[in-house]
Amino acid sequence: MRMSVFIAVSLDGMIARTNGDIDWLTATSHLIPGEDFGYGSFISTVDALLMGRRSFEKVLTFGEWPYGDLPVYVLSNTLTEIPNHLPEHVQRISGSMEQTIQTLKSSGYQHVYVDGGKTVQSALRAGAIDHMIITRIPILIGEGISLFGSLDSDIHLKHVKTVTFKNGLIQSLYDCNY
Amino acid sequence: MRMSVFIAVSLDGMIARTNGDIDWLTATSHLIPGEDFGYGSFISTVDALLMGRRSFEKVLTFGEWPYGDLPVYVLSNTLTEIPNHLPEHVQRISGSMEQTIQTLKSSGYQHVYVDGGKTVQSALRAGAIDHMIITRIPILIGEGISLFGSLDSDIHLKHVKTVTFKNGLIQSLYDCNY
Repeated sequence: MRMSVFIAVSLDGMIARTNGDIDWLTATSHLIPGEDFGYGSFISTVDALLMGRRSFEKVLTFGEWPYGDLPVYVLSNTLTEIPNHLPEHVQRISGSMEQTIQTLKSSGYQHVYVDGGKTVQSALRAGAIDHMIITRIPILIGEGISLFGSLDSDIHLKHVKTVTFKNGLIQSLYDCNY
Repeated sequence: MRMSVFIAVSLDGMIARTNGDIDWLTATSHLIPGEDFGYGSFISTVDALLMGRRSFEKVLTFGEWPYGDLPVYVLSNTLTEIPNHLPEHVQRISGSMEQTIQTLKSSGYQHVYVDGGKTVQSALRAGAIDHMIITRIPILIGEGISLFGSLDSDIHLKHVKTVTFKNGLIQSLYDCNY
């Protein structure tokens, strides 16, 4: 089972403002009509999504559930229930990252998309992330929720490729070498 | 007078470990024999260097003074003296960033290289950085001294170009639009 990150960050490494806002990310200057920055191609290779509670709660504010039939696991030890209007394949998962990975493996998933700052950090610390696709937005927001956090030891990455978009977004694919 | 940043950061945005170490940056895997990653070409356009006290103290540990005849201003309100063995054109400068910029302007400099985390952050907050050349090293170090810090408001950047090196370093040039 492979686990991948596909995420956008500000130049100063934030995935959201402190209050969770991503207005700076969804600003029209950071969009290109008809361009999905590789998301469609990426998500088509994924057979499950593991996200943190905060990311989940953010997604709920979007109105429409954006993940269709994709099995989604919300990693949380505090969330008590998944809202009724969500598909059955959206479920809560709790426990350590190691236990979570074991559960996903035994479900037979081949490629898990890992989303959300704390969840990505925890998976990195567990040595479980295989690939990271990071899209860097040309803005400094100063404060916010950081994509990366503390580690037990350095993680060396292999740069695979970088693509630049005409609106200044830079997308790099890295493989992790633990 | 233009002010530019030319700096290397880890993928998680650090310019040094918490204790100032840059061993992760100078590792041989991040060097290419005969390749200076554009530093020579950049430094040849610069007529003064403004650096923070911590960067200055780090440079002193290198042994040989690396900046030749370039006027160097060490921004510090605590440093009491510049070691005697350094050239006369290495001097301490104190006061606010605004005062410092005024002093540099009145000295007639055309292009100032700004180095060090706190000094870069302070210059960004003062709206004084024109260009940033950021070289991203394919490593996560987890904790350390961050290149960027808090801001009074977002800073929008214009991506000018990105170059990738065969050892996985990615160098992007941004112009700042305050």
